[in-house]
Formats: sequence, structure tokens, C-alpha cells
Amino acid sequence: MANTSIILRVELDHGKVTFGDVAAAISKSGGDITSIDVIRPGKDSSVRDITVEVADTQEDRVVESLKRHDGIKLINVSDRTFLVHLGGKIKVQPTLPIKNRDDLSRVYTPGVAKVCTAIHEDQDKAYSLTIKRNTVAVITDGTAVLGLGDIGPHAAAPVMEGKAMLFKQLAGVDAFPICLDTTDTEEIIRTIKAISPIFGGINLEDISSPRCFEIETRLAQELDMPIFHDDQHGTAVVVIAGLLNALKVVNKRMENIRVVVNGIGAAGVSICKMLLSAGVTKLVPVDREGAIVRGGTYSHPMWQWLADQPQVEANEGSLKEVIKGADVFIGVSRGNLLNGEDIRSMGPDPIVFAMANPEPEVSPEEAIPHSRVYATGRSDYPNQINNVLVFPGLFRGALDCRARCINEPMKLAAARAIASVVSGGELNELYIIPSIFNEQVVIEIRKAVVQAAILTGVARRIPKDFR
Amino acid sequence: MANTSIILRVELDHGKVTFGDVAAAISKSGGDITSIDVIRPGKDSSVRDITVEVADTQEDRVVESLKRHDGIKLINVSDRTFLVHLGGKIKVQPTLPIKNRDDLSRVYTPGVAKVCTAIHEDQDKAYSLTIKRNTVAVITDGTAVLGLGDIGPHAAAPVMEGKAMLFKQLAGVDAFPICLDTTDTEEIIRTIKAISPIFGGINLEDISSPRCFEIETRLAQELDMPIFHDDQHGTAVVVIAGLLNALKVVNKRMENIRVVVNGIGAAGVSICKMLLSAGVTKLVPVDREGAIVRGGTYSHPMWQWLADQPQVEANEGSLKEVIKGADVFIGVSRGNLLNGEDIRSMGPDPIVFAMANPEPEVSPEEAIPHSRVYATGRSDYPNQINNVLVFPGLFRGALDCRARCINEPMKLAAARAIASVVSGGELNELYIIPSIFNEQVVIEIRKAVVQAAILTGVARRIPKDFR
Repeated sequence: MANTSIILRVELDHGKVTFGDVAAAISKSGGDITSIDVIRPGKDSSVRDITVEVADTQEDRVVESLKRHDGIKLINVSDRTFLVHLGGKIKVQPTLPIKNRDDLSRVYTPGVAKVCTAIHEDQDKAYSLTIKRNTVAVITDGTAVLGLGDIGPHAAAPVMEGKAMLFKQLAGVDAFPICLDTTDTEEIIRTIKAISPIFGGINLEDISSPRCFEIETRLAQELDMPIFHDDQHGTAVVVIAGLLNALKVVNKRMENIRVVVNGIGAAGVSICKMLLSAGVTKLVPVDREGAIVRGGTYSHPMWQWLADQPQVEANEGSLKEVIKGADVFIGVSRGNLLNGEDIRSMGPDPIVFAMANPEPEVSPEEAIPHSRVYATGRSDYPNQINNVLVFPGLFRGALDCRARCINEPMKLAAARAIASVVSGGELNELYIIPSIFNEQVVIEIRKAVVQAAILTGVARRIPKDFR
Repeated sequence: MANTSIILRVELDHGKVTFGDVAAAISKSGGDITSIDVIRPGKDSSVRDITVEVADTQEDRVVESLKRHDGIKLINVSDRTFLVHLGGKIKVQPTLPIKNRDDLSRVYTPGVAKVCTAIHEDQDKAYSLTIKRNTVAVITDGTAVLGLGDIGPHAAAPVMEGKAMLFKQLAGVDAFPICLDTTDTEEIIRTIKAISPIFGGINLEDISSPRCFEIETRLAQELDMPIFHDDQHGTAVVVIAGLLNALKVVNKRMENIRVVVNGIGAAGVSICKMLLSAGVTKLVPVDREGAIVRGGTYSHPMWQWLADQPQVEANEGSLKEVIKGADVFIGVSRGNLLNGEDIRSMGPDPIVFAMANPEPEVSPEEAIPHSRVYATGRSDYPNQINNVLVFPGLFRGALDCRARCINEPMKLAAARAIASVVSGGELNELYIIPSIFNEQVVIEIRKAVVQAAILTGVARRIPKDFR
């Protein structure tokens, strides 16, 4: 499915093989040579690094073909993914060099004392005189990392570092990873509050449900800064963005559609809430036991919240039953739950967002013939619903206006901004969502989020371009 | 005492003044023009930024002289110290750019999953595949910042950022500031343990005594990584370094000298301990109530520890009494406690380290005529005892060998390494300690610390240059 790059360090015995033999062996076993570096040239033998692009599943075949080949000594196999991770993926840099004693006395003792005193007298000055105004903590407890589950704080670090890279590259935000060696809800809340002074915002990440709800809610109440659990709201924002454009394609309105959301965990709950904020009047949340119905009684507090909403349908049924006649299916659950028949049972022009990873709830082969718009979380099909589209611009906006929080109107504004980047002329079944490399995305989200923060009274600063 | 740079933005009315008038007014009021930038040229009037070097105490005089001058409009006064702090002094940078979808899939999902899995299977891999191996947390609770005292975590941030700059510039260590919004000992210990997974070491900073002892001791027991409270041990290491060289100047030996240490707080306790490790046999710790004596009973646990040591003298007395006949005075207390008479009452060739800030325990005017070696914490006298000399190299060494802790032998090795940078030929009364800009310092400390860590069995990795 996915490709990987490997670097093969080989020693060639020139009496027995030529480089052409090596190239032939690699290509015959499914590899594609992308570069060659000569490490040690020589008359009788030479050492080269050969970078090979290969399907994940074919990696062993390529390696084996070289191992068996007479005259080729395979010295080492490096996976490029591991190579880029060596020593970590971010670094901390001073903004200016300390060249002499004068510089030192300004950035450190004794000169720094008057800067400290200024902040001590007016704590708001921390936003202008420290890194606070541009710095976000990316915080996890390692309990729900990618599809890997509870792998712990050390193993979660590469994801958090990757996120910090994206924050900087896409939106100029300084982000630092914090991996918590505790899974206790109260301990996590206490710890994040304790370390909050240096940060201007908190991006929670990969914290398992249902603890993530309590942690986020409490932090939002107890800290005066943007708090955002990406797994919940990042996904919800980008789903709503995609849905806004998909509805334009099929010419339906939010108020009239019937939406089935399958998988009522961290992301599913936030998607349901945002659908309601966006105006949906017919909502069918579904989990493993079937539809969560209006008037029902549930132990999960968020399910109970849904059961109390007037827009939630009262009819019980399994996923395959309730999907009949639906306009929209949104899956954030498990792979291969539905087939082509199920999609065919939906209403006219079905919209299917099947975002389970790595296998979608319904495969493209089954879904595409029967749906009008099909989207997944994967990059190898059209319409990738990727929350990398959301967090950089959202925090850029929230930091720029020193928002006290990230509220529903700010999230909805972000969703509309993402949708707006795909122009009317470009919009079609296969292009409802912009690429994460589209630079307009962060610019538009920032603008929309700042405006929403100002309108809802949570902005503590009006950025220059909004005055 | 200290100089500062200010930037004056002025508008000149050319009908009334020339730039020569401005320059004359500045220089007459005590300022020294170091640069001029024309912001807006013009025929009738112009705007310029004038950078002026001025004594701290004269700043107002310069500003007033321009305000009163006819034809000069003072638009703004910026203090350069504040200017360098705008937006903070460090930033987080990716180690490589994410140029396309391929790059993204390596540093983030889906490729990053296999890196996470590798760490999950072998937690030690966090040292090679994340930022852990080169990253230190600089942690404070803001209770004992410089001479300012308990100014809180927000106001402490500029010092921590300055420290992070020095870590990177002097030793290539990535350091990130963490400012704790709690002063509770147990809460601080819990919080630091909880956030420890991403870090390779912990530099504690500006935490008030006596909590700092418990916090450091407990963290050292409960975390398997270098823990170092700079206010205690940084100061102690550089004092021992200076003392080693001062003793060479006066031709005395550690075992024979009688040492008075005044101020038995965070730094004083650590200095006493290191003096004992270094071989001192006659030690007189002194605090506000007078000498802490062998066999005495004290409520402060560290004072009691000292009272139990056989090398501590048993004779009671005030500072002015016990200093009589001493070979060495080390002060980490308050300014102006001693005069020339007191120094004269010491033994032959007295060594005086008067490190109170900003005023030393005994002024240079009083001390220099009667002492052989005089050192302070200040940069405007010879022999500055500055702990910036210590932490960069110490952590460089500890990280490079993945030390489980920072033990007494490693600290003593660091002190000897600093002393060794001043060669026999250079060594004299006015030059016992190298400059922090001397690049040899970090190199020598690292080498000594790694060796000591290997010898004492706390190194988990032998760096290449030690194999």
C-alpha cells in the first residue's frame, strides 16, 4: 500500500559483478533506484549507498535478492524513515547570538533582571517579552497514538515532534512536545496547569476517550488560554469543511440532510456537536451497540448528552439499518463495516466520509460506484480528510489575537475557511478539500478564527491587520 | 555601575536644530552615541533612531535633555535590553523541511508509526529516535530569581530563556524553559516526573531554599537521568575551580587550609560539601547566627548534616570572630559584611571570594589591599566566579554518556577541568578563572565529566572519542 525508502550500503566485487547487475537485481525484485552515492571507490571493489523506493511489502524481497547475489556484500540497510528521526526532528535555537559580555548582560544577568521585574509588575507583558506569545505545548499521555493505542509517552514522542514540525513550517508557531508519564485524569490536569506559564496555548493529542473529554473541559475552564484536543476537534473541523463543499456538489442544505455518524468516541462526539452547531436537524449517532437514540439512557456522559438533543433521531437500529435513506455517512470507527449494498440503500447522491485507518469503513471499490462523493483519511485516494489542515492555522489565529479559548464559533469559522479555499470553479466530486500544502489554507483559517474570536468577545488583542 | 543601550527616536525640525545640536545635548548629559539610523529623511524635518550607550543612572538625564531641547521631538525611547526580549529569545525549528507528501509520510503519519513501534518495543531507542538525547528542561518555580526573590513563574521566564540560549550556543544542548505555577514541593516533584519522558536531563533553577534540597534529592532518586540544581552546584563547582587555582597562586594545599563559608543556603551547602569532597579538613560554615559548629543541634537538616561532619570546627563565634586566621573566605550571602580590618585579621596570603550580588561581602576597595586573591560574581572586577562556566559543559558530558545522574566525582572533575584551562604560565592573582567565552572550557569539562561518569559506573554509553 505505502511506499518506503531504504538505503542499501553494498560492497561490489568488481571481478564478479558490475553495477548493472545490482540495478537489475533491485529492479527485478520490485525496487526503484532513486539515487546512488559512492562511499568508497576502488579498482577491485567499491562501496555504494543505493537509495531504493519500494512498496512496504516488497522491502524484504529487495534485501534478499542482494544478499543471495554472488559478488555483492550487503553491509547495511537503513530505512529512510528511521534516518530522518535520528536525534529527533526539532531543535531549540536562540533568536540571536551572544557575541560578547555586553550581549550576555542583556539576555542574561544582570540586564535580564529589569525584564523580569517588568513582567512581575504586569503579568500580561509575558506575552511581549517571552516566548509565550508564539509557543504551543503539544501534549500527550501516549494512550491513543495513531492506530497503535496505548504505547506510552516515550513511544508517542515522534508523533508529537512531527506535529511540532508542522506547526512551525505551516504556520510559524513554535511548538514543543510534552509526553506525560501518567494516565491519571486529575494528575494530567494538574501537571498541564503547573507547566502552563511559558505556553500561549495547549494542543492535546492522542489522549484516549473518555478521559480526553474531562481533561479538555477542565483545562478550558481553569486556564485562560486556547486548549484544543486535536483528535476530537481537528477531525471535526476538517469533516465539516469537507461536508460543506460536498453539500454544494450535491446541491443539498445542512438543515435538510439526514447524517449517520458511526463511532462515537473522541472524534465522533466532536463531529456530532459541530454538525448540530452547523445546523443539522436529523442526526443518527451510531456506536457498536447500534444507534444512540433520543430519550435513551447511557452511562457514557457524552452519549447521554447526545440522547438529550432534539435533533437526534429516536429510532433504534443497527448501522446497516439506520444508514438506509441517509444523505451522509461519516465514519470514524473501524474498517470494512459496510459494503456497496449499504451505500446503495442511502438516499440520492450519497456522501460517504469513511475515515477509519488504515482500512476505511467501506472500501473505495464498494463505495465509489454507489456514492456521489467519497472521502477517506488516506492520501492515496482523492478527498483526503486530514486534520493537518486545521491545527496550524487555528492556533496561528488564536495566538495572534490572544484568544482566551477556542470556542465553537472559532472552529466553525475554521471549517468554513478551509471549505472556501476550494473555489466554485474547482469544486467537484473528486476535489472537495484543499491540499495541506496549499498556503492559502493557514491564511484563510487565521483570518476567520481571529474574526470569530473578536465577534465572540474572547480576543484579548486585535492584530494589526484587523484594526 | 552598569551601562545600557537605549534607542531614541527623534524628529528634528531643521529650521531650529542641526544633528550636531542633538549630538551635543546627548554627550553633555552623559550619553555616548554608537549608531544613527535615518528612518525618514526630509528637507524641513527628519526622523532618526539614535542608539546611545549610557550608564544606568544617567538614562533619565539623557532623555530629559532631549525633551527640553527646542526643535527636537522625542518620539520614543526603546531600551535595547527590552528590544532583544521582544517575542522571547528562543525558537523551535524543524531539523528538516517537509517539502512534499513523501516527506510528510516519513516524519508524520503513516511512516512515523514504525518509529513509535520501535520505541515501544525498546524504550532506550527514545535516545536515538527522539530529541531526548540532546534536550534538557530548564525548570524553575520562580521563587528565588536572581536577587529579585519570589517573582513567580511568568516573570522568571526571561532568565530561563537566557539559560536555554547559553546551553545551545556554548554546548549545542537543546534546552527548553519550564516555569512552574506551583511552589509545593511534592507537586513540583510530581510534575517534573510526569513531564520527564521527552527530556534527557533536568536543570533546576532559582528554586528557593530549603525546598530545593528535597526537590533535587528526590528527583535524583526517582528519575534515571541527570538532575542538577544550578544555584547550588553550578556555583559550588566554579568556586572550587577558582579555589584550586588560587591555592596554586599562594602555594597552599586543600588539606591544610582553614575555610570560612558565609551564607549556608542553597549555594553555601553545596560549596561546603564540595570542599569536603575536595579534601578540606578545617571548615567553618557561618550563617546569620554565627558559626555552625560540630556537635551543635540545628533544625535545618543541611545545617545538622554539617554539624555532624568531623572536618567542621567546634568553636562558636560571629563571622568577624571566626574569620580571624582563616586562609580562605567564601561568601554567598549579603553585601558589605566585612571591612579591610577583617581581611587583615585572616592568615597569610588571604583568598577572598566575595560573591554576594550586586554588592560583594567586602568591597574591592577594602579587600584588595589586604588580600592576595580577590574574586567576585561581578563582571567589572577581575576573577569573575560565574556559573555560566559550568552547566553547558557539564550537561554536554552527561548527555553524551547518557549518565544516570550527576554525582560528586563528576562535579569535582568539572571543577578541575575549569581550573586546568588556565595554564601555569597564565595563572596569577588576577587571572584564576577562564572567561565563559573561552571555547576550551566546555571541551575540557565534557571530557572530564564523561571520564568521571564512566569511572563511577553511571555512564550508559561510551562516546566514540572514549572508545
